[in-house]
Amino acid sequence: MKIARYAQGSRILIGVVDADGICIRPLAEDLQDMVDVIQRHGAPADTLRVDATAVRLDQIRLLPPLVPRRNIFCVGKNYRAHAKEFAGSGYEAGAVKGAEIDEYPAVFSKPPSTVVGDGDTVQLHPQATSEVDYEAELAIVIGKAGRDIPAPRALDHVWGYTIVNDVTARDRQRKHKQWFLGKALDTFCPMGPWIVTAGELQHDDLAVKCWVNGELRQDANTRDLIFDIPTLIAILSAGLELQPGDVIATGTPAGVGIGFSPPRFLKAGDEVSITIDAIGRLTNRFA
Amino acid sequence: MKIARYAQGSRILIGVVDADGICIRPLAEDLQDMVDVIQRHGAPADTLRVDATAVRLDQIRLLPPLVPRRNIFCVGKNYRAHAKEFAGSGYEAGAVKGAEIDEYPAVFSKPPSTVVGDGDTVQLHPQATSEVDYEAELAIVIGKAGRDIPAPRALDHVWGYTIVNDVTARDRQRKHKQWFLGKALDTFCPMGPWIVTAGELQHDDLAVKCWVNGELRQDANTRDLIFDIPTLIAILSAGLELQPGDVIATGTPAGVGIGFSPPRFLKAGDEVSITIDAIGRLTNRFA
Repeated sequence: MKIARYAQGSRILIGVVDADGICIRPLAEDLQDMVDVIQRHGAPADTLRVDATAVRLDQIRLLPPLVPRRNIFCVGKNYRAHAKEFAGSGYEAGAVKGAEIDEYPAVFSKPPSTVVGDGDTVQLHPQATSEVDYEAELAIVIGKAGRDIPAPRALDHVWGYTIVNDVTARDRQRKHKQWFLGKALDTFCPMGPWIVTAGELQHDDLAVKCWVNGELRQDANTRDLIFDIPTLIAILSAGLELQPGDVIATGTPAGVGIGFSPPRFLKAGDEVSITIDAIGRLTNRFA
Repeated sequence: MKIARYAQGSRILIGVVDADGICIRPLAEDLQDMVDVIQRHGAPADTLRVDATAVRLDQIRLLPPLVPRRNIFCVGKNYRAHAKEFAGSGYEAGAVKGAEIDEYPAVFSKPPSTVVGDGDTVQLHPQATSEVDYEAELAIVIGKAGRDIPAPRALDHVWGYTIVNDVTARDRQRKHKQWFLGKALDTFCPMGPWIVTAGELQHDDLAVKCWVNGELRQDANTRDLIFDIPTLIAILSAGLELQPGDVIATGTPAGVGIGFSPPRFLKAGDEVSITIDAIGRLTNRFA
């Protein structure tokens, strides 16, 4: 089940995309906030009812599927090849040669104000950075609250999955050492195009691909995550209650702009497009 | 003007503490959320009206003055003596001897779920950490939205100040390198006892003191901040619009538990009390 948030004329709606991918049907309930939908419908496939009236997707405008109520939880350096390209790029403060792979995951956050939807423009903020980079990632959407969740039960807490682009100002990431200021600029978290409910995909075998202006840059599979999804949920929820509507971005594979020599940063007019099997495509232009 | 959020019986109220510090008077408006108060009353001293009925502070229970709508912005290593004790403690990933003072501030975040009020209990989370430490800090409360705010105009965006204890799980801070997981555990951000509006204090000349079980541990002055408040606001707001109700914790001075050899971590039953001139006292027990 693909669940999208969208604008139709002046109305904001949440709906279910038809299996053919051509039409969308709004929920029978009048809800505009995906977190409310998640809180009411812990088992979406069983309990969500849609209106009979289908509208073609090309007649509506997709919105970010979810605007979280606290910062997005983000994992860094969670694919081996990316950990090595990052350490070798000169952009990782404190990188140690031969110790590129961390024993414990690096976790940081992005504020809700970074979130934009499929088709929205990402601001390059030239007054704040001159080194903007893309990071294609699978993101988890939490459905059921829990603290100290053991890994074997972690998937019970997942409502669905979506795609995020963890856009990063590399100069700020490097200079400030802690990554927050390089990750938190307004519009720096494209998310979408929608959420696919958890039962519909195999989280540990999904192709993640990213193109810049049509050139394939990232091409990996979630089976190569260093810390898999159950492990991440167990680590994050230790002493920290996860809440319905929380979003966890699971890290990006190799092929980001600083993986090239010289680095290939994004510039005005560039288009970044990310696909993940069984979810869809997230495309954004930078300006 | 000291503005507090509190419970009186089953009601949640916001009120103004009398000059004598003995009584509090509720706002004439029925508001329970400090962010709503800030959005409506950008100039609190001119526009906030209180009810005539005073209640003694010992008849009410203080609540956290504000629960922010996104994670708290936190600054690390912002006093020279603390930057040196942290680098020398072995708890700073990537510390370089002789380069303890950073050229750019380290910024991370704490989720709203960390916030508790004066008198509330902080959980030690023994299943997640065995090295819990205190950090006394002055915190800024933003009143007026702004992006790319120049330092000379930064104070126009400040609504008030409060005290926070940036409680930290040192083992997690060290192991995960990025600090978020060491900072984000539930109840790890005592805040209060109230907000003092900006016009009432001299932000760059405030004594910050912290006691553990009555023993003075931290004793510094905000004049010693490496990055002062206007500079922090300018750096944080570059490409990131600050919003009314945002909270910025400005960093802790020397004297934390890992500054001792061996380190002195908090244990069940310990009481941490922080005072900042012109604001008041924030006291919490750990359990």
